[in-house]
This record gives sequence, structure tokens and C-alpha cells, in this order.
Amino acid sequence: MIRVLISGQRVDWDEYGGLLQAALTDSGIEAEVIHERMPRSPETIDYIVYAPWSDMKDFSPFTGAKAILNLWAGVESVIGNETLTAPLARMVDPGLTDGMVEWCVAHAMRHHLGIDRDVCRHDAVWDPYVPPLARERPLTILGLGILGRAVGEALSGLGFPVTGWSRSAKDVPGVTCHSGEGGLVEALRKAELLILLLPLTLATEGIMNAERLALLPKGAVLINPGRGPLIDDDALLAALDSGQIAHATLDVFREEPLPGDHPFWAHPGITVTPHIASATRPDSAVGVIVENIRRGEAGEPLLHLVDRRLGY
Amino acid sequence: MIRVLISGQRVDWDEYGGLLQAALTDSGIEAEVIHERMPRSPETIDYIVYAPWSDMKDFSPFTGAKAILNLWAGVESVIGNETLTAPLARMVDPGLTDGMVEWCVAHAMRHHLGIDRDVCRHDAVWDPYVPPLARERPLTILGLGILGRAVGEALSGLGFPVTGWSRSAKDVPGVTCHSGEGGLVEALRKAELLILLLPLTLATEGIMNAERLALLPKGAVLINPGRGPLIDDDALLAALDSGQIAHATLDVFREEPLPGDHPFWAHPGITVTPHIASATRPDSAVGVIVENIRRGEAGEPLLHLVDRRLGY
Repeated sequence: MIRVLISGQRVDWDEYGGLLQAALTDSGIEAEVIHERMPRSPETIDYIVYAPWSDMKDFSPFTGAKAILNLWAGVESVIGNETLTAPLARMVDPGLTDGMVEWCVAHAMRHHLGIDRDVCRHDAVWDPYVPPLARERPLTILGLGILGRAVGEALSGLGFPVTGWSRSAKDVPGVTCHSGEGGLVEALRKAELLILLLPLTLATEGIMNAERLALLPKGAVLINPGRGPLIDDDALLAALDSGQIAHATLDVFREEPLPGDHPFWAHPGITVTPHIASATRPDSAVGVIVENIRRGEAGEPLLHLVDRRLGY
Repeated sequence: MIRVLISGQRVDWDEYGGLLQAALTDSGIEAEVIHERMPRSPETIDYIVYAPWSDMKDFSPFTGAKAILNLWAGVESVIGNETLTAPLARMVDPGLTDGMVEWCVAHAMRHHLGIDRDVCRHDAVWDPYVPPLARERPLTILGLGILGRAVGEALSGLGFPVTGWSRSAKDVPGVTCHSGEGGLVEALRKAELLILLLPLTLATEGIMNAERLALLPKGAVLINPGRGPLIDDDALLAALDSGQIAHATLDVFREEPLPGDHPFWAHPGITVTPHIASATRPDSAVGVIVENIRRGEAGEPLLHLVDRRLGY
């Protein structure tokens, strides 16, 4: 009998407790799924399913933990925790990937066709316009991890000429791939639409600063479903006010919820979405957790293991 | 030397005159492209490139015309013209098809994810929500001609379970196809998103009447980039007011431009777009016209020939 702790907020227990217990039983894994702020005998816990908004920040009592299974894709708020010595796996949930592709397609198409002008008004003005076709609209994605690749393939399939950039060289079907600092300049120079799907690390924080925003074609649109601190907020506001950036659709922010007095809320060139680009979906995420527990028990390598040196 | 008449409004001549002359010359076809309201010696005209908003409604002087090449996809306003006895071809422009796919993807994704709530407001309300995934959102397309098929394949590729309906039985990869009256009921019953891409004929006018709107799941969304008269306007307004239809995005209308006092403009449940879902694009359309002239001269069957009995 292994013991699995769910450490998060009450909603995580409500969403995952019963599902995970049932899925483990269905997989023939004898397990007890528990949810306590600090369980008795923490040294007997085998796996911790962890949502980073958990109140629990001290992993040192869990001397027997074989792995920490993060419930979210991002690990930036847990990776620096020095009490965490067990292997850490990120969540890569097929439902989360599909949701991210859908959000990115929706907002990329929205900006590509300029539909806000019709969607947000009800005055009787008949004013036809013919936007370019997707194949005439260069689009760049920064970050070619599982999410960036999936988004790039979907948008390439819709006709956009897609360029991708990542720290290390990648190869994605239908996507022109660049890497390194020189590759970043090239990827930005042609980006009429720019989507940020980088992990947040010391190397990517503030990557979209004034200098790099200035590399984009004038009137470019910025779409950020990645992480808030990838962007220098003040530089973005200045670029919007100068017309260098025509619009920004932002799903993530340096502080969340975005404070009510933040200038992003009222800016006519910014669309705020409340960190919904994609959510971990319990139905599909539970399958990933069960597979990692099975692997842990069988001594096989975990899926989506975090490389602490790289930060993701 | 063949003679090709462009009959339309001034803008058609401006867009197509030079392009068509150059493309014919490039193809080795000796031709003179002309634009006159009523040319001298109409009996010497070999081909008429025709935009249905042309002032010219009497084809009888063109006794030598080998074909009428319609510049638009829809032929409903010309097909009943009794003076038109030469073969009539519709425009099926690859640029028009691509544009239609893009418009339909943009608005289907917009409604699927419910993005208007974020796009059209700037109040500081952080209110996360998790929409279903596309694979959980049944979508139906009425009409499986070249446009309907292309839209169906694109939306199926994005994960939607796509059902299609057409008068006669069709087979489209990734699309569950129905036909006939019984098939229409089945296709409508599961349509959370419904896209109309039928031609306008005596059999399709008013096809979305009160009875058929009532077959949709409650809260369905209607998207019409096809033809305005496919919908019974009063029935649609009643279905919106009862909540049977949650929203309608309409690109085409019984009268265009949509009159300023039409209730569609101000209705909060209706998005009006000004007949822009797709436009014939001169660059790609000229290639289709030249190919049909080449075929006409070679005695080969024309592309996209209209069947007058069916009306499209």
C-alpha cells in the first residue's frame, strides 16, 4: 500500500481526490490518497501531488518521498525550494496542451482577421474590409516545448508561415526553427503576430524588453499565454503608446489576479484574459499522475522530469 | 484574337482589367480585355467575366459568347436571367476558399471559447473559467460544397466533432456526413455550433425557420457566412430572445448593406460582419478565369459549371 498526498488548496482535493483514488485502483496500484495540511508520519508518504499554491512549503519532513508530481505545467515557484530534494516532474497534460492550442488559435485568428471591430460594436456601420490570408501573415512562437510545438503545428496547418525560436536547436514539422541570440533577432524581425510560450527562467525573465519589442515589425500583435514576467510591462505600455505594438492579448501577469489598478486593465490596446489560456484538466491529468506513480514503483524514468539546472 | 468583356462595377475593372490581360498574355492566349457598359459589336465577344452587381442584365446581344464566367461564388441573382443561354461557371477561387476557412475558424473558436467576455470589456474583473475542449463541442456544417468541405476539414483538424449535411450524400474525411430531410434533423439535433454554407436555391431559402431552429440544442450558436435568405430573420430573433439560440454571427443578409434600422444591428446576441467572410481575390481568381478561357478555346469542359436545374 503506497501513500499519495495531495497538497494544494481545497479545490485540488475536490477535483483530484476521488478521481485519483479510482484511477490508481483501476490500474491495480494499491494506494491510499490523502489530503492533510501536514499528515501524521510524513516520512511514510511515497508521492506528493503538488499544486504550487499549496500552503505547504517545507518538504523536509517527507524523507521517504520518491517524487513530487507537480499539478501545473510551470514549476518556477517550487524549483528554488531548497527543502525539495526528491525528483520533481512537471504536469504535461494532453488536455492542457489541447486547450492551449485552442486559446492560441482563437486569439491568433482574431487578431489576424481584425474581428474585434465587428465583435465589440453594435452601431450600424457597414464597412467591408479584406484582411490578408494567413499565408501572408508571418507568425513567430518563442518557446518550442510541448506547448509551443503543438501551437506551431496547428497554426502552420491553418496556413500561417510559422517561425519558432528556442534556447537550444529544435526541429518542428512545418515550422522554421531558430535558436540562440542571433536566431532570436531573426525570429522577431518578421513576427507580425508573436506568441510567447517560454518557460520562466533567469534567462527568459524580461526577454520581451524595449530593445526586443523594437525589433518587431511596426504594428505587430503580442500574445502571451506563457508567463507574465517574460514581458517588461513598462516597455510594453510604451510600445503600445508609440504604435510599435498594435495590440497585446495577455493571459498571464507578474501579479495574479492582475491588481485592479494595473494600467493593463483599462488600456484600449490590451486584452486581459484571467489566466485561462489553458488549465490542467483533472480527467486527463490524473492519467499522467498514475503513469508516473507506476513508473516510480517499477523503477522506470519519470515522465516530464524537471532539469533543475535549466529550470524546467 | 479573342475578346473578353469584364462586366461589373468600376472597381471590378480596376482590380481585374490589367491583371487579366497580363495573365492571358502570359498563358499565350491572344486576347483583348475590354470594359464597356455595352460594347460595339457585342456579337464579337467570346467570354463575359461577370460580377452580378453589373448594370448589364441583358445577355441577348452577345450571340457569340462561349461562356459567362461569374466572378463570385454565388449565382442566385444571375441564374434566373432568361437572356442567359451560354454556359455559366461559378468562381471557385482558392483564395476565397482559404479566406472562408479562416473566417469560420476565427468565429467558431471565438464562440467555442466564449472570448467576447474578455475581448469587449476593460473593467478590472478577474473571473477565470474553463471552457470545454473542442473535442467536447459538436459542430455542424450545412452545405458540403467546396467551401463547406474545406471548413469541415479545418475544424475537424482542430478537434471538433464535425457533422456535415448536404442535399445529396457526400463523403468528407473527418466529417460525419448526413443527407436528405431525415439527415438534416439528425445534423441539427447535436449542433452546439452551426455553420451555414449552403447555396441559395428554392430548396434552401428559409431553411433555418422556427421549426429547425428549435431542433438545435438550447443555447446553440449560429454562424452564417453563406447567404442571408437561408435564415428566417423573425424566427431567429424570436429564438435569440427565448434563449434557444445564444448568439448569431451573421455575414450575409436578405438586404445588403444591412439597413441601418434593421434589428440585427442593435441586438446584443447578434454580431454583424459586413459580407467579408470571404472575398474573391484577384490574384488567385484571375488564374481560374484564364484556365476556363483556355478550356473553352480547347473545347474542354469548363471548371465549376453551374447546373441550372439544381441552381448552383
